[in-house]
Amino acid sequence: MSEDTSEHALSDGELAETYAFAIQLGKDAGQILLDSLHKRRRDGNEDGLGEDLLVMQEKLNAVDIVTETDTRVEEFIHSSIVRKYPAHAFVGEEMYSQGFSKEYLVTDKPTWVVDPLDGTVNFTHGFVMFCVSIALVVKQVPVVGVVYAPLLNQLFSACRGRGAWLNETTRLPLLGRRGVGPIPKTAPSKCIFAFEWGKDRRDTPQGNMHRKVDSFVTMAAEVGGRDGKGGMVHGMRSLGSATMDLAYTAMGSFDIWWEGGCWEWDVAAGICLLREAGGLVTTANPPDDYEGAKIEDAKLGGRLYLAIRPASDGPDGETARQGQERCVREVWRRVRRLDYSRPGA
Amino acid sequence: MSEDTSEHALSDGELAETYAFAIQLGKDAGQILLDSLHKRRRDGNEDGLGEDLLVMQEKLNAVDIVTETDTRVEEFIHSSIVRKYPAHAFVGEEMYSQGFSKEYLVTDKPTWVVDPLDGTVNFTHGFVMFCVSIALVVKQVPVVGVVYAPLLNQLFSACRGRGAWLNETTRLPLLGRRGVGPIPKTAPSKCIFAFEWGKDRRDTPQGNMHRKVDSFVTMAAEVGGRDGKGGMVHGMRSLGSATMDLAYTAMGSFDIWWEGGCWEWDVAAGICLLREAGGLVTTANPPDDYEGAKIEDAKLGGRLYLAIRPASDGPDGETARQGQERCVREVWRRVRRLDYSRPGA
Repeated sequence: MSEDTSEHALSDGELAETYAFAIQLGKDAGQILLDSLHKRRRDGNEDGLGEDLLVMQEKLNAVDIVTETDTRVEEFIHSSIVRKYPAHAFVGEEMYSQGFSKEYLVTDKPTWVVDPLDGTVNFTHGFVMFCVSIALVVKQVPVVGVVYAPLLNQLFSACRGRGAWLNETTRLPLLGRRGVGPIPKTAPSKCIFAFEWGKDRRDTPQGNMHRKVDSFVTMAAEVGGRDGKGGMVHGMRSLGSATMDLAYTAMGSFDIWWEGGCWEWDVAAGICLLREAGGLVTTANPPDDYEGAKIEDAKLGGRLYLAIRPASDGPDGETARQGQERCVREVWRRVRRLDYSRPGA
Repeated sequence: MSEDTSEHALSDGELAETYAFAIQLGKDAGQILLDSLHKRRRDGNEDGLGEDLLVMQEKLNAVDIVTETDTRVEEFIHSSIVRKYPAHAFVGEEMYSQGFSKEYLVTDKPTWVVDPLDGTVNFTHGFVMFCVSIALVVKQVPVVGVVYAPLLNQLFSACRGRGAWLNETTRLPLLGRRGVGPIPKTAPSKCIFAFEWGKDRRDTPQGNMHRKVDSFVTMAAEVGGRDGKGGMVHGMRSLGSATMDLAYTAMGSFDIWWEGGCWEWDVAAGICLLREAGGLVTTANPPDDYEGAKIEDAKLGGRLYLAIRPASDGPDGETARQGQERCVREVWRRVRRLDYSRPGA
């Protein structure tokens, strides 16, 4: 271990303390989101467009909006963290959206990586799939993750070495009668495939939208279709929240999540959940040798993610990990590379 | 009014009674779904594949599965209805899937149209987006609709003339500070667009999958893209449950739902919800004169649906209905016709 390593390492007691702190912070932040939503409803019944819609500021384009609530919740989380852990760094979505460059700013120092409101469009429409996402990242590894979807009353939490949990009582992944089950032999067939359309909607053949759609169609098409690559997945899901997609993959509700374009605050907590639940997360972009390449962990700031749910060992001696890696290669065989570069990464 | 009309008409008292009956039936059926889900979890922790997966029977293909639970819940609902309303007809999803032809069987007689479990794949994966759907249809019009998603604790209900409700207490649509809001002037931009990929995954250029995907891409693409048709919608959502999509459109959480291929039991209750909330539902397939054609109500058994959320009147004198019709034509301009024919319709 280098000197740098021990400098930034947290003791087991410190880790436990940050975990409890993050859970409480997630609950409090979620409550602010709920209160804001209910306030909009209570004050309803006047005529015309809701003011809440008027205070949205347009970000990248019409797809990416920011509400007053985002900003208020991030300020609440930020000030709480600064008070409790003044030596820790902080990276939040709203900080970026207010003019910071999109450089990757997470160092080896303990860093809180926060999305105060993932699924902003869902939130402004009163659709249940929005959440707050809070992670503590140490030496590039998310060691604490909390995702709280207050309208769903689903609190997902994980801490390195302590497993992943739903509402602090139910261990993830959720188990069927005999466990979470191995990855299906015919994967991606029989799998639920989650993805998002994203904000890059350029209508150019080599743009990300068309690369994504090509990939979606290959995953969806009948077996034998698409030049033999048809994946015939069981279900295609888009919730409008990358964080919720990833949380549900950790839960075992989704089998595969494939995504390019989201940011570290969208995934840091979810990656901790997924790993502690026994899932795998690697890059969305197939390497040249997709059949033989070593399957590396996804880079936190890489903006390209492929997650496979937790699994049981197979009945034929295949380990859970082997099943997951088989599934990764089956996805890589069917998807196109995406192009989401950024400064500093 | 013809003699036939009065023969099948329900009095206001009878209608109120069927509404209360349908709500209780939905709650009871939803509880059976929850109990079944929790039982699978309680009995977990053995090794290997869950038996619940083994009892699934393959229907149309690998995408459409039926569980023991579907069948049990439909039997419960069917027997409850037969006991209470022996003179009424009954059409249920499982009845069809067990060998009945796909003919449209709803007559003018009061008919209960039931999907015991919509979102079966979500259910088997423990994902929240599944529900029971119960409708009473009189003379082809859904007059009572109940959709209950027990894991979400969301009960949607509506009765002709009595409005649409969430959990029996909150009137739909959900309101922002000044009402649900008019349809955006730039619709489908600023709208949440919900759709499903469906079960028809044939990889043929004129097949429904490719027609759907073409339509999705046009709705998603940047303004100016796709030969000037790019819709730049705010969000693209696929939940894996047509019934939930439609309920969320009634709620105002989704702005547009476009779908081909689902059946009357998927939509009958949702159509009642949507109409009572103030929404509009017409056909998914654009007529030749999509700019001028009269906007007709969707046919219950037509398998083609385009729903627009409830709306407020616009600030410029445009009525809610005019805004919705404008939105219908903007969708029609961007989507391709789908081909879901059936015997008897």
